[in-house]
Amino acid sequence: MSTKVKAYGTSSTENPLEEITIERRTVQAHDVEFEILYCGICHSDLHQIKGDFGAFPPPIVPGHEMVGRVTAVGNHVTKFKIGDLAAVGCIVDSCGHCEYCEDGIEQFCDEGVTFSFNSEDKISGGHTFGGFSKTYVCNEKYVLKMPAFEDLASAAPLLCAGITVYSPLKHWGAGPSKKVGVLGIGGLGHLAIKIAKAMGAEVVVFTTSPNKVEDAKRLGADEAVLSSDAEAMAKYSRQLHFIIDTVSAKHDVNVYLNLLRHDGTVVLVGLPPEPLEIGAFNVIMGRRSFAGSNIGGIAETQEMLDFCFEHNITAESEIIPIDYVNTAFERLEKGDVKYRFVIDMASL
Amino acid sequence: MSTKVKAYGTSSTENPLEEITIERRTVQAHDVEFEILYCGICHSDLHQIKGDFGAFPPPIVPGHEMVGRVTAVGNHVTKFKIGDLAAVGCIVDSCGHCEYCEDGIEQFCDEGVTFSFNSEDKISGGHTFGGFSKTYVCNEKYVLKMPAFEDLASAAPLLCAGITVYSPLKHWGAGPSKKVGVLGIGGLGHLAIKIAKAMGAEVVVFTTSPNKVEDAKRLGADEAVLSSDAEAMAKYSRQLHFIIDTVSAKHDVNVYLNLLRHDGTVVLVGLPPEPLEIGAFNVIMGRRSFAGSNIGGIAETQEMLDFCFEHNITAESEIIPIDYVNTAFERLEKGDVKYRFVIDMASL
Repeated sequence: MSTKVKAYGTSSTENPLEEITIERRTVQAHDVEFEILYCGICHSDLHQIKGDFGAFPPPIVPGHEMVGRVTAVGNHVTKFKIGDLAAVGCIVDSCGHCEYCEDGIEQFCDEGVTFSFNSEDKISGGHTFGGFSKTYVCNEKYVLKMPAFEDLASAAPLLCAGITVYSPLKHWGAGPSKKVGVLGIGGLGHLAIKIAKAMGAEVVVFTTSPNKVEDAKRLGADEAVLSSDAEAMAKYSRQLHFIIDTVSAKHDVNVYLNLLRHDGTVVLVGLPPEPLEIGAFNVIMGRRSFAGSNIGGIAETQEMLDFCFEHNITAESEIIPIDYVNTAFERLEKGDVKYRFVIDMASL
Repeated sequence: MSTKVKAYGTSSTENPLEEITIERRTVQAHDVEFEILYCGICHSDLHQIKGDFGAFPPPIVPGHEMVGRVTAVGNHVTKFKIGDLAAVGCIVDSCGHCEYCEDGIEQFCDEGVTFSFNSEDKISGGHTFGGFSKTYVCNEKYVLKMPAFEDLASAAPLLCAGITVYSPLKHWGAGPSKKVGVLGIGGLGHLAIKIAKAMGAEVVVFTTSPNKVEDAKRLGADEAVLSSDAEAMAKYSRQLHFIIDTVSAKHDVNVYLNLLRHDGTVVLVGLPPEPLEIGAFNVIMGRRSFAGSNIGGIAETQEMLDFCFEHNITAESEIIPIDYVNTAFERLEKGDVKYRFVIDMASL
């Protein structure tokens, strides 16, 4: 049993997004259905519609930073009732019994996690459609309780951008007496600054854009360094405990490895399409690491939402109507957004 | 005050090593002098005499895996008396007061560690001369108490190769219920197999050489895999907790990152001259790390010697006279040694 739902999608990597109709399963015993109020736009939406992660059968409906209000619940649902705020991020299903799921890192599920769009849908068949649509239906296990953020629209990007930076900051111990570097100020980087500061760390931002230096400080960074300024960079040699690298283009991570103290880590959360080169001495000296991190598990995503609500952290966002979405993707590709687009889904 | 000492060295990267005379300082209050009985040959000796790490003023006397017997001690020496076995590895001096030295990782000393050869000698002036010589003089802080190994010659390589693998195996928790990969079987790799087994880990060896598969098992590996065998490699996907990578040539570490479980680490201890390429997804998926490690501190080197003595671990070595050393370097360059040359210094 399924319901027709209005959405925004594309049938080809060549075409712009347009209004289409998709089908969502009707609510099962453990399902929650919610009306999507706001949906953030993430760089990986752009990658997917362009086919950067490989071909995918049409239609593609992107969107994985959804905030909404519950419109229906299955018989066995205990976490939600109609009218509650709810949110869904990247993960909408996983096996639930592998060691990864048991450890709360469902994103690495042994049987393959189901993402909120462009994933094989193991429950309904076909593939999943994302949040550029009127409603979403999901097992309550993967639905987050959305705190009542004053600016609910700007909280939507927390569902992917927020957890993507919160998880490694937490895992690698950002907090008081730690010096944390943030590399790149975009959707991810600007939230990393806010979250790392709220965790109590000293935050140093590295950017290639002179016009972002002041912005980094406005966002809460203790210091902001233009990465082309060799003298300023040298000042941080062997100074940082941890650097979160949000850059999605090819770049020289060796420069940043050398800013780490011993046992420090540069953790990549961006997705550069080309491999990054690492010189042996840059990890061997100081027992440094180059690591990666990918979103976070469901329990940790809930923890992040509660943390951000408590610390009044949301994304800096530009709220747009759905018919602006193709222009928004063009601007996103050029880096022309401060710092996240969020679609007001009432416009659909 | 100094003493003339017979040594084997070279005045140019073009020339073979030959007998020369160097000067060593006479024993100071905290110094230990010992007659060098055995000295191992390490790949980094070869790098240094070839100038791979940059030009260095002549003469170069390599050798940093020294085992000997104490012949003189300064007035304030408490750790040694004449006749004791003693050993010196890579580190012969450091500032002693930076956080690295205080943390027992003198190899990363903020003011720059003094290596046993080809380092600025901050005590005597000039530069340090290594273990291809009759005697060595060193502050007792950097002299190790050498356990009475039955095969003392074959214990010499522990001073560099041994600590280079022991330190990361310990740091990353190799032990019971851990599956540890060893990449490459040479001077470092063959000791990594023995030490990881003695720590209680399950050891899987990866090699490009069909003729080393059996040898890996003889050395104690639970399994040995030919890295060109895609089917055998696939069996280890997401299986290993930790991989120690001893390869000193350019190679594809992505293959090995994908053999790691979540939160696993590939740690490089080899010194490939070219950068290694890492694809973003290979670290992002599973929160994996690519790290490096460089020898170990003095206290940890002592701990390693005691551990190896207790577990009867020495290198598989080919004992040679000093006048064979140029041929040994040629063979080392071709990988023609199983697995470490050790010079019987009585031949000098």
